[in-house]
Parts: sequence; C-alpha cells; structure tokens
Amino acid sequence: MENRVYNFNPGPATLPLPVLQKAQEEFLNYRGEGLSVLEMSHRSKTFDDIINRAVESTKKVMGYGDDHTVLFLQGGATAQFAAVPLNLALKGKPALYVNTGSWSKKAIAEAKKLGIEHKVIASSEDKNFNYIPRDFEIDPNASYLHITSNNTIFGTQWKEYPDTGEVPLVADMSSDIYCRKYDITKFGVIYAGAQKNAGPAGVAIVIIRNDLLERSHDDIPTILNYKIYAEKNSLYNTPNCFGIYIVGMVMDWILEQGGIEKIEQVNQKKAQILYEALDNSDFYRPTAEPDSRSIMNVTFRLPDEDLEKKFVAEANEAGLVGLKGHRSVGGIRASIYNAMPLKGVQALVSFMKDFEKKNG
Amino acid sequence: MENRVYNFNPGPATLPLPVLQKAQEEFLNYRGEGLSVLEMSHRSKTFDDIINRAVESTKKVMGYGDDHTVLFLQGGATAQFAAVPLNLALKGKPALYVNTGSWSKKAIAEAKKLGIEHKVIASSEDKNFNYIPRDFEIDPNASYLHITSNNTIFGTQWKEYPDTGEVPLVADMSSDIYCRKYDITKFGVIYAGAQKNAGPAGVAIVIIRNDLLERSHDDIPTILNYKIYAEKNSLYNTPNCFGIYIVGMVMDWILEQGGIEKIEQVNQKKAQILYEALDNSDFYRPTAEPDSRSIMNVTFRLPDEDLEKKFVAEANEAGLVGLKGHRSVGGIRASIYNAMPLKGVQALVSFMKDFEKKNG
Repeated sequence: MENRVYNFNPGPATLPLPVLQKAQEEFLNYRGEGLSVLEMSHRSKTFDDIINRAVESTKKVMGYGDDHTVLFLQGGATAQFAAVPLNLALKGKPALYVNTGSWSKKAIAEAKKLGIEHKVIASSEDKNFNYIPRDFEIDPNASYLHITSNNTIFGTQWKEYPDTGEVPLVADMSSDIYCRKYDITKFGVIYAGAQKNAGPAGVAIVIIRNDLLERSHDDIPTILNYKIYAEKNSLYNTPNCFGIYIVGMVMDWILEQGGIEKIEQVNQKKAQILYEALDNSDFYRPTAEPDSRSIMNVTFRLPDEDLEKKFVAEANEAGLVGLKGHRSVGGIRASIYNAMPLKGVQALVSFMKDFEKKNG
Repeated sequence: MENRVYNFNPGPATLPLPVLQKAQEEFLNYRGEGLSVLEMSHRSKTFDDIINRAVESTKKVMGYGDDHTVLFLQGGATAQFAAVPLNLALKGKPALYVNTGSWSKKAIAEAKKLGIEHKVIASSEDKNFNYIPRDFEIDPNASYLHITSNNTIFGTQWKEYPDTGEVPLVADMSSDIYCRKYDITKFGVIYAGAQKNAGPAGVAIVIIRNDLLERSHDDIPTILNYKIYAEKNSLYNTPNCFGIYIVGMVMDWILEQGGIEKIEQVNQKKAQILYEALDNSDFYRPTAEPDSRSIMNVTFRLPDEDLEKKFVAEANEAGLVGLKGHRSVGGIRASIYNAMPLKGVQALVSFMKDFEKKNG
C-alpha cells in the first residue's frame, strides 16, 4: 500500500495489510447487510457467525479442542491481572508468580491489592530483567503459577515453559500469543491483550481449560467472571464487536499464511537476521541475555543516548516508526510481531548498517 | 450511500454516515501517518490528540467544565454496574436504586453480589415497567441514588430527573446519552455504553464530578478504579483506541449538526411523528404510558404475534431492519437514536401505514 510505514510499535501494533484492506472494503456495508460491523447487533445471526468463526479460527491455529473455551473480553491484560486471582485462587492454596518485568509486577501487585494469598517464587530483577529465571520450585499445593511469557519492555521471552504438574500454568501472552507453536497441554489459562499480535486494542483473548471454569465464584464482579462469559460465548453483555471481527480475520490470516508453523518460521527468520546484525556489530549492543532473547521485541542500545535519539528520528524519516525503547529503560526496541513482514526487518537492518557507517 | 439500510437496532446501532465515511477514508493511513488508528500506539502524540479531542468534544456538547472528568473505559455498562458501588458506596450510607427495568435490575443485582449495602426505593415492576416512578423519598444519608435514564426494552425514559440534594445522582444513560440537553449540575456521575447513541461497542463513557473521585479506594480491581483512570486521562492501560476515535468523531458530528439543541429538536420531531402514527391507529398499540415515553426507543404491539412477525419480516425486506422487540417482552421496538435520520423514521411511518392498510 502506498505510503504505509513499517510500524515497529510495541502495541497497538502493525496489523496484516490484507485484513485492514478487507475491513476497509466492507466498512460501510458488511457483505451486503447494508450496515457496518460497528453498527451491527451483537444478538444478530450475522454477528453470531462472526464471533463463532473467530472462536473457531483461534482454536484451529493452535489445535485447541472442546476441552478449552475461548473468550473475547474487554479491559486488556489489566483486567486479567484481577480476573486470574479472583477466578482461580483457592483458599489455603497460594497463587505463585514469576517476576520477569514490569507486567509481571503489575500482575503481582493486583493479586496483592485484592488480598489474594500469593508468593513470588522467582525473579530476574537482580539483573534488570535481562533474563528468564530457570531455577525455582513449584509448591504442588498452589492455586496456579503465573508467568509473563514475553517481556515487551526488556526483550526477553520464555523459551521453554515450566512443568507445573497438577498446578495450572497461567500465562500472560499479551506480547507473544501465537508467535510460535506451543504445547497447549502445558497451560491452564493463557490470556493476551490482542493489540500486539492478534488484533486491535480493546479485546483480551482468554483461553481456559474448561475444568478451571468451575473455580469462578459468584461474588466476583460480573465483568471479570470467566464462568459467566464462558456460558454466554463472550456475549453476556455487548462485547467489542468490531475488535472481535478483526481478531477473527487475523486468525484466518495466520491460517492462510500456512498456519502457526509457517508463522513461527518467518518470525524466527526475522529475529535471526536482526540479532545477527546486533551480534556482528560493536556499535549496537543487545540487552537481553542470548538464551532469553525475545523473537517479538528486540531491545538494544547504541553507544550513547544522543545517538539513540538520532537513530529513532532518522529511522522515522525513513518510514521505520515506533523504535523508541520503553520510557522506563530507554534504548531502542524493534517490535516484530506476526504482521511485520520480513521485508520490514530487512529494511531496518539495512538502515542500521547505514546508520552505523555514518555514526560508528 | 447505496444499499445502506435504515438500522433500528437497539444497540450496537446506526452511526452517522459522515463519521463512517471519514473513518473508512483514513482506515489504512490516518492523516498521512502511514498507519491505521487500529495500529497506533496509545502513547503516541497522534493518539494523544485523538483522545484529548474526544474528551474536549464530549465536554463541549453538554457544556461540562473543569470540575468534571470524562473517562473512556472498557466493559460497557456491565462494568459500571460494579464500578459505581465499588467506587462510590460509603460505609454506613446505603446506595439507593430506582428499578425501572432489566438494566436497573442488573445494576441492583451487581451491588448485591458485591455485598454493598443498598435499597431499592421505587420500582415500576408492578406494571411491567411501562412507566417511570415519581413518588419516592431519598434518604439524605445515602451514598448515591442510581437511576436508568432510559429503558431500552420497555421504551420508557425519565422526563424530569429527581432532585437529590446532597446525594449524588448517578445515571446509566447508555441508551439516551446526549439525546437532549440536560442540567449537568443535577448529576454526580453519568455513564453509558457508547454503542447506542455515541459510538461503537467497546467504549463506556463515564462523566464524573471531580470531588467524587476521592471516594475510590485502593482495593478495587484497577480496571474499575475511577481515580486511577482519571489520573491517567483513561490511559492507565491500552484503551479501545479505535472506539474512542469514533466516539470523538460522533461528538464532533453532534457539534457540526448545530449542537445538542438541534439534535434534541430532531429527536423530538422523530419521536413525535412516530408516536402520532401509533396514537392515530387502532392497529398499533404503544406500550409505554404517555408521560414516560422514550424518544429513543419506541415500543409497540400489533394485534397479534403472527402479525408482529410478518411486520418485522416485511420491514426487513423494505430495508428497515432491527425492529424486533426484546426477546423478554416481544412486540416491536424502533430505536431512533441520534444517528437515525428523520427520513428513516418517515420511511418507517410510511411502511406502517401501508402495512396497516393491507393487514388491518
């Protein structure tokens, strides 16, 4: 598309162009219905088809079956930080957390705020979160173990997920949901704000093993109650209809690309050429430890902050936008989610080489 | 626009065509930025301008000043059913509710579920909610009084809002926000799911008098905490960016139409010709008591249910969609929100006359 930039923003983030084009085309008149998806009753047959298709495709990408439920909720991961302990914490069984950065901290703070018995069993705060902890023990009496599968700000990602035995593993996958194949049997719940890898802001995807729905008590605010939303196929109240429609199309786009294996392959390739460029340079310095590097958010530093500012500004001019690191850590961050084409990463690498030549 | 229908759905509902056209036009490339609003960082200068403009226009339409805060939240009115008592209920001061239908009941049930001390001080359930109660007393020691300003299902609407003295009046205005001028000094909080009169599903508008923000305690789930969201201009976490963008454009559209006075004038006219058609017929029977009639949702019955089915089906064929009454009450409901043009109502009235001639 003419005049589209390569958008490296950490989220909301770039979406597949064919999805946007399709949505634009039917924006005023959805498939002959004479109205926009934005105007469509969530109780209509047409929207039922949209949400059912979105659920089905979300399951299909990763091979989920009838023993899991897909929910499309509102409030992003922030709502889930509360929903997870409110729905899943059992009396006398501590909720366990691994702290791998800012988002883990928020999840932990929320459990604390809500008076949930919890324990932080591992943390990488000692090295400013530049790695994923590997040594920790899981109390078999725990309600669940919560991890943040990818840390947008620090550019780290779990490579192997922990074995938790009977303790349900809960993962905030906001920034790497469906970036690669994972073993669905390892998780009790995964959740993700859609706005990084799966759609626009305003939809949270929750995939929950059905037996865990039985934990939801009635005294939870309805809007956070998994069981109620599961019983109504996410339609207890009016959902973010347009957002769900886009998420469904993104899932279909993954399937059209050749499915999750193909997406993973492209993602690995994209990350590889970017990390290679960093490793082959003395000018750029990647911040995450090699065995904890994220294939979604690649974080690095330049020799000094003035150069970093210059880098971001000149990249912007070159149509490579959203590269500024998070305000809490500084530096550069390239978010290369599923919808970022290989070409975009190649353009970035080429820009980096030029920039180093001129400023190195 | 070719092939667009007249959409009488109760919500999500019809949106102003110029708003949709503008959104479609800039869907792939927002004002030369090279990306869609769906892909835009909520921390960007561009989105800051979008949300600030939306807040400003929302205030401007009704004349709100610096003593009120506008929030754009997620979770619809359902989240607010919890947020209102969690933020505003004070110990030893009961929360008061008037029960005027299904949505009031849900608000009351949520307060109960959350263990909030509350009292239902009036109800119109005795006549299946076909009127707005007028006789009730307000305990001056109450935390707040909650009303549902318009009852989508039963076609009733408060004509005059109660005087509550020092007790903050809280109104769920989901189905009639900004349909007419109201006295802003009467309310402590108004809230509304945007998807009926103000935008798409997935955004809840909350307008709160600033002094009430001090009531929010820290132990509320963050996603429901008014004070936290007020401090961050609704950007504590990623909001429904696209939804806010549309709400802002709808507010600007109201201003372009000549402001709230002009909108009210058109709404009164639309309601008038529809109710006149009902009153001048023995075939159609309006369900709400005349002095409680909604100018947003006009509910009526036909001589029998078979005729009602036929009416809905034939109207649909004629490009008048969404007229089926709520499943809990049956009958016909024409939702004629701000974005429904006068022409649409005229087309409906003309269809009704024809239908009566053929079937009366």
